Amino acid sequence: MSVVTLAVDAMGGDHGLSVTVPAVARMLSRHDHLNIILVGQPEPLAEALRKQGLQDHARITVQPAAEVVAMDDPVAVALRQKKDSSMRVAINQVKEGKAQAAVSAGNTGALMAVSRFVLKTLPGVDRPAICTAIPTSAGHCHMLDLGANVDSEPAHLVQFALMGQALVRAVDGERHPRVALLNIGEEDIKGNEQIKEAAALLRATADMNYVGFVEGNGIFAGEADVVVCDGFVGNVSLKTMEGVAKMIGNMIREEIGQSWLRKLSGLLALPVLSGLKKRMDPDRYNGASLVGLRGVVVKSHGGTSVEGFISALEVAELEARRNVPALIRDALAPEAAPDTGA
Amino acid sequence: MSVVTLAVDAMGGDHGLSVTVPAVARMLSRHDHLNIILVGQPEPLAEALRKQGLQDHARITVQPAAEVVAMDDPVAVALRQKKDSSMRVAINQVKEGKAQAAVSAGNTGALMAVSRFVLKTLPGVDRPAICTAIPTSAGHCHMLDLGANVDSEPAHLVQFALMGQALVRAVDGERHPRVALLNIGEEDIKGNEQIKEAAALLRATADMNYVGFVEGNGIFAGEADVVVCDGFVGNVSLKTMEGVAKMIGNMIREEIGQSWLRKLSGLLALPVLSGLKKRMDPDRYNGASLVGLRGVVVKSHGGTSVEGFISALEVAELEARRNVPALIRDALAPEAAPDTGA
Repeated sequence: MSVVTLAVDAMGGDHGLSVTVPAVARMLSRHDHLNIILVGQPEPLAEALRKQGLQDHARITVQPAAEVVAMDDPVAVALRQKKDSSMRVAINQVKEGKAQAAVSAGNTGALMAVSRFVLKTLPGVDRPAICTAIPTSAGHCHMLDLGANVDSEPAHLVQFALMGQALVRAVDGERHPRVALLNIGEEDIKGNEQIKEAAALLRATADMNYVGFVEGNGIFAGEADVVVCDGFVGNVSLKTMEGVAKMIGNMIREEIGQSWLRKLSGLLALPVLSGLKKRMDPDRYNGASLVGLRGVVVKSHGGTSVEGFISALEVAELEARRNVPALIRDALAPEAAPDTGA
Repeated sequence: MSVVTLAVDAMGGDHGLSVTVPAVARMLSRHDHLNIILVGQPEPLAEALRKQGLQDHARITVQPAAEVVAMDDPVAVALRQKKDSSMRVAINQVKEGKAQAAVSAGNTGALMAVSRFVLKTLPGVDRPAICTAIPTSAGHCHMLDLGANVDSEPAHLVQFALMGQALVRAVDGERHPRVALLNIGEEDIKGNEQIKEAAALLRATADMNYVGFVEGNGIFAGEADVVVCDGFVGNVSLKTMEGVAKMIGNMIREEIGQSWLRKLSGLLALPVLSGLKKRMDPDRYNGASLVGLRGVVVKSHGGTSVEGFISALEVAELEARRNVPALIRDALAPEAAPDTGA
């Protein structure tokens, strides 16, 4: 297996080094062909590596960066003021060809803006999008855009569809993934003008298994492999999922806590509940891809655990190994002049 | 307590009479002050009443209607061809002042179109909306619009906010309900132009406890009492909730089914799971209000159970008793000329 190098923003997210460094340690022991460039403030980073006994690891390189993009930093600060941030320096590694992918748990808006500024979009891509795997009763699907773009035009939705299709072909090995548009009904007459026009364009798109509209509940029924939507709608849907799943989890805990009988019954229910947790675990689905850029960038949830950050690293490793940006470029601009960009 | 009369489309929904008539029977035994006009095809309706021993019930009137709007009938068919449908005749009862509310499990598009055509909108209301209660960790909130309007303009979102506020004041007795706009971030700069403009209008609205933006996960955290959104976004969010809850339910059943040990542990977990079911039960939250019309119209889920249809009847009874349309009229057009409409 060819060598893959990931550049990791070691400082990003709510928990920074205490999550990123242990995750990197576990990831390296899983994958022999993997190298990691850890980007961050040299002293705390060296300290965290020593704690994990990683200070002399042959496959870890440290790349210093003096600043950290805070979770609440405005995009303009990340872009114009913090030019030596761990986030930006990690993305620079991809730009310079030293890494094939960058991973950060830093704030989404900043990560997208810096990635777009540093790496640029692929030819044929007007707007990069955010894409992630979503659990379904049949396994999972991929959904995009999840918030990078509001007010997407029909042509943008078509680009999202092509990018999602290329991604799923690469990571799931599914040659003809079912592509659907998220809508408020399954009949052709439903939805707004944007959706109807996008549907007409998708029906006319060659080499695409476009299966029509899917509703919010259809996402989870396994009706599609790629669910395409505007970023406003996609973000609301994604956050709704998170909210419902969290509320149900809390309710289960509250119900268990209500009486001794219930505590006992809750204890006995553990095998069932842990089976459920394994399938719905947000850690397992952590790692959203910023697609449409000249390089792989993966965004981890800011508040994720070590396990969750490992999932994001796995997403980046797989997309880098399969060279997803090249596949997206081929899908979006098959007849364009050879790409002379980075 | 003053007498309330509900007109019930006895034929609507996936299960028609087998759900609506038993639900009406239970509802009448709960509420002494309630009268029901059952609307439907005379023979099957009489037969269903006999089965329940209700043929001579003093508080049931039968209103014949020859036709039924099918779940997949286009709006145009319901509106122009089936003028003697049980759905339409039920709404006519409200128009003619014989009932204070109509309830139907028939198809949503048809119900909204026929209601709007027959009852007309209240002064100051450009577009009626669909509103329902949503479970949250703190109890519930109300959310609108859930699919009647796509591409809502900022002024429409403000009308939705005013209607939702009036509804919650009436049914929850909450004088200053917290009103929020559904958005993809909580900061002022997030979202599309429509949302930012609506936010500015809501901040300037007198007598409203506008609390700002709420994200998809915030709906369930109990951050607002009224969640306002465009119908496209609201419908996707609502269906997402249904889809996630159903998937989790299925996963729990599958996990329980996996082995004898798990079956046993699942059995012992029943008190916990039934506590959970009670709180998340879709039946309990069945019954969406069509707000902004000159009369109360409540839409039941098409595939609901007897319990679920009772919930929809309860929503209608409460809104009729509190005279929600008059409160919405006062909220939307406080300085308008006296209403001379129906």
